[in-house]
Amino acid sequence: MLPIRFLLAAFGALYSCPSLFAQQTISISSPDKAIILSVNNAPTGSVTYKVSYKGKKVIEPSGVGFILSKPKASLTQFTIASADSSAKDETWKPVWGEVSQIRNNYKELALTLADKGSSGIKVLVRFRVFNDGVGFRYEFPQQTALTHFVVADEKTQFALAADHKTFWQPGDYDSNEYLYNTTRLSEVDAVTASNKEKDTALKSLIGPNAIQTPLLFKTGDGLYISIYEAALLNYPVMHLQVDKKKLTLTSQLVPDAVGNKAYLQTPTQTPWRTIIVSDKATDILASKLILNLNEPSTIADPSWIKPQKFVGMWWEMHIGKATWEKAGGKHGANTQNVKKYIDFAAKYGFDGVLVEGWNVGWEDWFGNWKENVFDFVTPYPDYNLDSLTAYAQSKGVRIIMHHETSGSVTNYERRMDAAFQYMVKEGINTVKTGYVGRIIPRGEHHDGQWMVGHYERVAEKAAQYKIMIDSHESAHPTGLHRTYPNWMASEAARGSEFNNAPTLGITPEHTTILPFTRMLGGPMDFTPGLFRFKLNQFDSTRTTRVRTTLAKQLALYITLYSPLQMAADLPENYEKHLDAFQFIRDVPVDWDDTKIIGAEPGDYLTIARKTKGKDSWFVGAITDENSRDISIDFDFLEPGKTYEATIYRDAATADWQANPEAYKIEKIPVNSKTRLPIHLAKGGGCAIQLVKQ
Amino acid sequence: MLPIRFLLAAFGALYSCPSLFAQQTISISSPDKAIILSVNNAPTGSVTYKVSYKGKKVIEPSGVGFILSKPKASLTQFTIASADSSAKDETWKPVWGEVSQIRNNYKELALTLADKGSSGIKVLVRFRVFNDGVGFRYEFPQQTALTHFVVADEKTQFALAADHKTFWQPGDYDSNEYLYNTTRLSEVDAVTASNKEKDTALKSLIGPNAIQTPLLFKTGDGLYISIYEAALLNYPVMHLQVDKKKLTLTSQLVPDAVGNKAYLQTPTQTPWRTIIVSDKATDILASKLILNLNEPSTIADPSWIKPQKFVGMWWEMHIGKATWEKAGGKHGANTQNVKKYIDFAAKYGFDGVLVEGWNVGWEDWFGNWKENVFDFVTPYPDYNLDSLTAYAQSKGVRIIMHHETSGSVTNYERRMDAAFQYMVKEGINTVKTGYVGRIIPRGEHHDGQWMVGHYERVAEKAAQYKIMIDSHESAHPTGLHRTYPNWMASEAARGSEFNNAPTLGITPEHTTILPFTRMLGGPMDFTPGLFRFKLNQFDSTRTTRVRTTLAKQLALYITLYSPLQMAADLPENYEKHLDAFQFIRDVPVDWDDTKIIGAEPGDYLTIARKTKGKDSWFVGAITDENSRDISIDFDFLEPGKTYEATIYRDAATADWQANPEAYKIEKIPVNSKTRLPIHLAKGGGCAIQLVKQ
Repeated sequence: MLPIRFLLAAFGALYSCPSLFAQQTISISSPDKAIILSVNNAPTGSVTYKVSYKGKKVIEPSGVGFILSKPKASLTQFTIASADSSAKDETWKPVWGEVSQIRNNYKELALTLADKGSSGIKVLVRFRVFNDGVGFRYEFPQQTALTHFVVADEKTQFALAADHKTFWQPGDYDSNEYLYNTTRLSEVDAVTASNKEKDTALKSLIGPNAIQTPLLFKTGDGLYISIYEAALLNYPVMHLQVDKKKLTLTSQLVPDAVGNKAYLQTPTQTPWRTIIVSDKATDILASKLILNLNEPSTIADPSWIKPQKFVGMWWEMHIGKATWEKAGGKHGANTQNVKKYIDFAAKYGFDGVLVEGWNVGWEDWFGNWKENVFDFVTPYPDYNLDSLTAYAQSKGVRIIMHHETSGSVTNYERRMDAAFQYMVKEGINTVKTGYVGRIIPRGEHHDGQWMVGHYERVAEKAAQYKIMIDSHESAHPTGLHRTYPNWMASEAARGSEFNNAPTLGITPEHTTILPFTRMLGGPMDFTPGLFRFKLNQFDSTRTTRVRTTLAKQLALYITLYSPLQMAADLPENYEKHLDAFQFIRDVPVDWDDTKIIGAEPGDYLTIARKTKGKDSWFVGAITDENSRDISIDFDFLEPGKTYEATIYRDAATADWQANPEAYKIEKIPVNSKTRLPIHLAKGGGCAIQLVKQ
Repeated sequence: MLPIRFLLAAFGALYSCPSLFAQQTISISSPDKAIILSVNNAPTGSVTYKVSYKGKKVIEPSGVGFILSKPKASLTQFTIASADSSAKDETWKPVWGEVSQIRNNYKELALTLADKGSSGIKVLVRFRVFNDGVGFRYEFPQQTALTHFVVADEKTQFALAADHKTFWQPGDYDSNEYLYNTTRLSEVDAVTASNKEKDTALKSLIGPNAIQTPLLFKTGDGLYISIYEAALLNYPVMHLQVDKKKLTLTSQLVPDAVGNKAYLQTPTQTPWRTIIVSDKATDILASKLILNLNEPSTIADPSWIKPQKFVGMWWEMHIGKATWEKAGGKHGANTQNVKKYIDFAAKYGFDGVLVEGWNVGWEDWFGNWKENVFDFVTPYPDYNLDSLTAYAQSKGVRIIMHHETSGSVTNYERRMDAAFQYMVKEGINTVKTGYVGRIIPRGEHHDGQWMVGHYERVAEKAAQYKIMIDSHESAHPTGLHRTYPNWMASEAARGSEFNNAPTLGITPEHTTILPFTRMLGGPMDFTPGLFRFKLNQFDSTRTTRVRTTLAKQLALYITLYSPLQMAADLPENYEKHLDAFQFIRDVPVDWDDTKIIGAEPGDYLTIARKTKGKDSWFVGAITDENSRDISIDFDFLEPGKTYEATIYRDAATADWQANPEAYKIEKIPVNSKTRLPIHLAKGGGCAIQLVKQ
C-alpha cells in the first residue's frame, strides 16, 4: 500500500478545514467512480457516513460510535483529528476457491476521530471503497487514554433510503439456522418468524426488531445491497436492531455471560462492516469484497490443504436407519458399516468418509448442558478405528473425523491437543466440528466474542497439526478462509439436514437466497446430493421430504460452492441412479474461474465454473418453487472450440412435489455461441458438464 | 464397611413404623455415645436432624432439602422410604501429615427420602457420627425420575441453640482472605466487616447476613462447634445465610454465570456437611473428621510426593525491593538474583526455591479481565531457566514453578499440558498456582462448581506428571489432600502477605483462629518466618508491619501445619539472626504424631509434634495480642528419657509493637515429667526443639 497523508484540501470543495467551518464533509469514490462515500462531521460532533451508487442512495447519513463500560466513555461526538487516504490495486491467489486469482482494488480513507468529551480517546475509522462496495472498521490505536477496554455497545448505523424488500433471518445469539424471510424492512417481525421455526435445537432470540447479517435488500430503484461483516476475529457477531419507522439499522453485538460485548486491548480493531452494492444481482454473487478485507493466509506452506469430496455415515442417522448412540442396537458407526462406505467411496472416487457417532458419549450428549460429554479419543467398542484407517488407506480413501462438542467448549479446548494428536496418529487430516447445544462456558453464546476466539483457536491449532476443518453450528463465516485456508467450510446456516425437519424443511427458494447472504462469507457444508425425496425409507410414519427435483440436487454442487463437498445420500440410493450420480463423481471442488450467468435472490441463479487446471466447465442452474425457462449463453467458453455438454436436466414431467426423480441426461456439442434453452421444473434445476473436445 | 440393613425397630423406642404413626424419629449415637444424632420426619413431610453432645444441644432441629430448577422440583417434604445403618472402625495411613496414622471410626445412618410431591425423586441422606462430630451428605441414586439435574438451591439448615460467640468471615463468592470477626451470631454484619477490608484484590460479597464456612462457635455451656464441609468436588462451596432472630444458618451455594448452583448427573452426591464438636478446644484441633470423610488416595505410588521447605523470590516483591514485571528495571526474577536464592537454599538446607515473576506477561496481568495473559512456558529474557535448573540441581536444590493464572482459567486449562510438560523437561516437580483476579469463564466465581472442578482437574493432571501443587486463591480446602496427596497445600485464607497490607494487616489473634477454622480443611501455605517487622526496608514511606515477635514467627512452623513450608523472608534478613534461623532449618514438615497441648480460639495455642521417623519433638506456642504465661507439660515424651530442649522464646522485654526482635535461645534438659513455664510476650510465641539424648 502507498499511504498518502494528503492535504485535507485534496478532497476538494467537499472538504473544509475544521478551524474555519463548523461542518466538514470528506468524500472518496470507488476506483470506477460508481460508488461515493461521504463522511460528515456535524457541529454537534456527530460523525455520519453515507454511500451512493451511480447516484442512487445506498446508505443515508448513518452514525458511527461506541459506548465503553471500562473506561466509562460515550464515544459518539468527535472532532476529526486527521484524514489520510491511500489506494491499492493488487491481485492475489487463494489456496483454493471459486477463482484462481482475486483483484483487490480500493481507495481508502482513514479518519482519526478524537472524542469531544473528556476521555481523550482517539478512534480511527478506516473506510475502503471498492467497485463492488464499501468496508469500514474501527481501529483503536495504542494511546495513553486507552489500553484495556470493555465495549458496552457499538453504535454503527445503516440508514436505508426507503422501505426496501428485505431478505432477513431473526436475530439470534446462538442460531443462524433459520429460513430467510422476505418482507419490507418495516414489516420485520422476528418473534413471529421465530415462532414458525419449531425444529431448531437452540434459539436465543434477541427481540422482535433484531435481525441477522448477512442481510440483503432489493431497492425499488433497482439496487441490490448486502450488509455483512468481514474478518470477524476477537469480537462478537454483529446483529442489527431495526428502527422500522426511521428505516435504520443499528449494530447489536452479542453479549457475554455478564452482558459485556467485547474485551479489547489497544492496538486493536473491529471486524469490517461491509456494504456490497450493485444494480446487477450477479455482481453481488461475484463480489470478492469480503475476502479482500481479510488478512492473507497465515499458513506458509498450504500444500497439505486439499479440497475434497466425501460420503459418510450421517444421513442414515437423520432418516432413522441408524443412530449415533450405541445404546438401542442401531449403532451406525460400526466397523462393518463404515467399511461399506469406504468401499463405496473407493469405487466411485471419493476422497473421504465422514463417520459420525464413532465415539463414546452419544447416549446423553444433548440437552443437559453437561460439560464432560465426549473425550474425542475413545471409539465405541464396535468401531475399530485402527483397522478402518488402515483399510481406508489401502483403498486410497481417508476417514473424516467428527468432533461434536455438544457446545461444551471448555471440555473441547482442554482435550483438543489430545484429539488432534489422535487424528495425526490415525492418519486423519480433516475434522467436522460441531457445536450443538448451549455453550459451556455457561452464559456464553455461539456468536459471542469468546466463541469467536474459540473458532480461531481451533483453526490455528488445527493448522499446527495440518488438519482441515469443516465447522458446524459455528458463527457465520466472514471470509476467514483467506487467513486460515484450512478452515475450509462451515455450516452456519440452514443446511440440507433440515430437509428432514418436520415443520418447514428446506423451502425451494432457500438455496436461491443462500448465495446472496450466508455464502458471501465463505463456503458452506450444505451437504447436497439427496436422491430420495420422501424421507420415509426407514420410518414409514415420516412425512418429511426434500423439496427439490433430483436435477436440482446436482445443480447445487455448482451453485453452493464448497471445497469440502458431501454426497449426502446413502450408497443404496445412489446406486439406483448411477447415471445421475456420475455428475457428483465428476464435479470438482476447486475452480479456476466462476461466471455468474444469471441470478435473482429468492428466484433463481445460474453459475458456470471452470475446473482448476483443466479446460472443462460446469454449469448449475436452480429455481425456486416456480418452474422457469432459462437460456444459457455459453459465451464464457473458449471461442472456436467445441465442448461436449452432458446435461442433467429436469424431465418435462418433473416437479419437486409430484415427480422429483424425473430427470433426463443428454449429451450435445456446444460452443461459445450456443444459447441453450433449459426448462427448470418447480423446485428444479439443471447441471451441465462441459468437456473441451 | 459392614452394612446392616436392620429392622427399623432396631433403633428402639425412638423409632416408629411410618404406617402406624404420624411422626418418626430415628437416632444413632457416636461410638463413644457422647454424640446423639436424631432425625425426625414430621407429618407434614419435613425432615429435620438434631445433634447433642453429652446431653448439650449442638444443633437444634434443622431442615434438609433441595430446590431443583431442572427438573423443576421442590424436595423439602419427604417420607422415609428406608433406613440403613452400619458402622466402621479402621485405621489408615496418610502419605504425609500431622500424624502417621488416622482412625476412622463412626456409626452410619442412611435414610432414603422419597419426595412427597409428584416428582418421584428419591434422595438419600447419609449421616456419619464420629466421636468428634457428625458428617452428612446428600446422595442422588440413579433412578428413572432423575438423571441430569440442575440445583437451584440446597436447603440445609444448622439451627443453633443460643446466641453463641461466633468466629466468622463475610460470605464471599471469590475471596476467603478476610480477617475473622468475633461476635455473637445475632451480631453478624458482613457488609460492615467487609467495608473494613480495603486490601483484598477482589470481593464478591453475598450480603449482610451471609458468612463463610469454616465457622466456629463457642457456646455459653462450654462447647466448641465447627461447621464446615468435606470432600468438595463437583459442587459449589457452601456459604451460609444467617437468620439472626431464629439463630439458624441455611446453606447458600455459590452460583454460576447464569445463577444456577450445580449441574449434576445421577448417581452423584454433595460434599459432606460437617459438625465437629467438643467441650475441649484441643479436641477440635485434633479432629480428623474431615480427612476421614474424604476418599482414599487416587495415587497408587506416592513415592514422588515429598514434603519440603523452601525459600523464594517473593517477599522482596511485596516489600518493594523488586517487581514481578520486567518493565521498570527492578525485575526480581533475573538469573543472578535467583542464583543467590539457590546458593542460600543450598547453604542452609532448603529443598526448593520459589521463583515468581519469571515469565513474560506481568506488565498487565491484573485488573483487566484479560484472557491471554501468561503462556506458562516463556521466561523473561533476563531469566535463564535452563541454566538455573542445572545449577540448582548441582546444588541439590529444586526450583519451584509459579503458575499465576490471573484468574484466566480457560487460558490456563488450554495450556496446562504444555505448562506441565515444560516443568517435567526442566526437572521441576512443584508448582505454586495462583488465581488472582476475576475468573474467566466470565461470570464464574472462585468458589463455584466450575472452579471446584478446575482445582480437581489440576490435581489430577499434575499427578499424571508427578507434580506437587501449592494452590493460592483457590476455594477453601476440605480434606482433599487425602484423595489427592500431591495437592499439598493451599492458601485460601489471609496469609502472611497481608502483613504488608496497609489497612488491617495480620492481627496478632489471626493465627490463633486459623487452626480452628481454615486449617481444619487442610494445610495452608501461610509463608511464616518473617524476621524483619517494620516493612519499610526498601520503601521508607511504608508503615506496614508484622504484628508478632520473632519467636512467634518460629512457633508458626509448628502451629500452622503445612508439608510445603516457606521461609518467607529475605536471605539478608535471615543472615542477621542465624541463631534463630537455625530453628527454621531444623523444623520438619512431616510428622509421626501431634499433641494439642492447649488451645483457645482467638487467644492462644500450644502444639507438640513428633518428627516423622525420628525420636525428636518440636513444640510451638503462640498467643494473641495479650502476653501470657503458660506451662508446657512434656508428658508426651518417652518416659525415663532425657531430651535436650532448645528453646526459642520471647525475651522478657519482647513485645510485637515495641520490641519484636527480642528473643532468647537456651538449651535445657527435659523429660516427661518436666513442666516448663514459658512467658509469651504480647503477640509472642515460643518454639522448642527436643532431641532425645
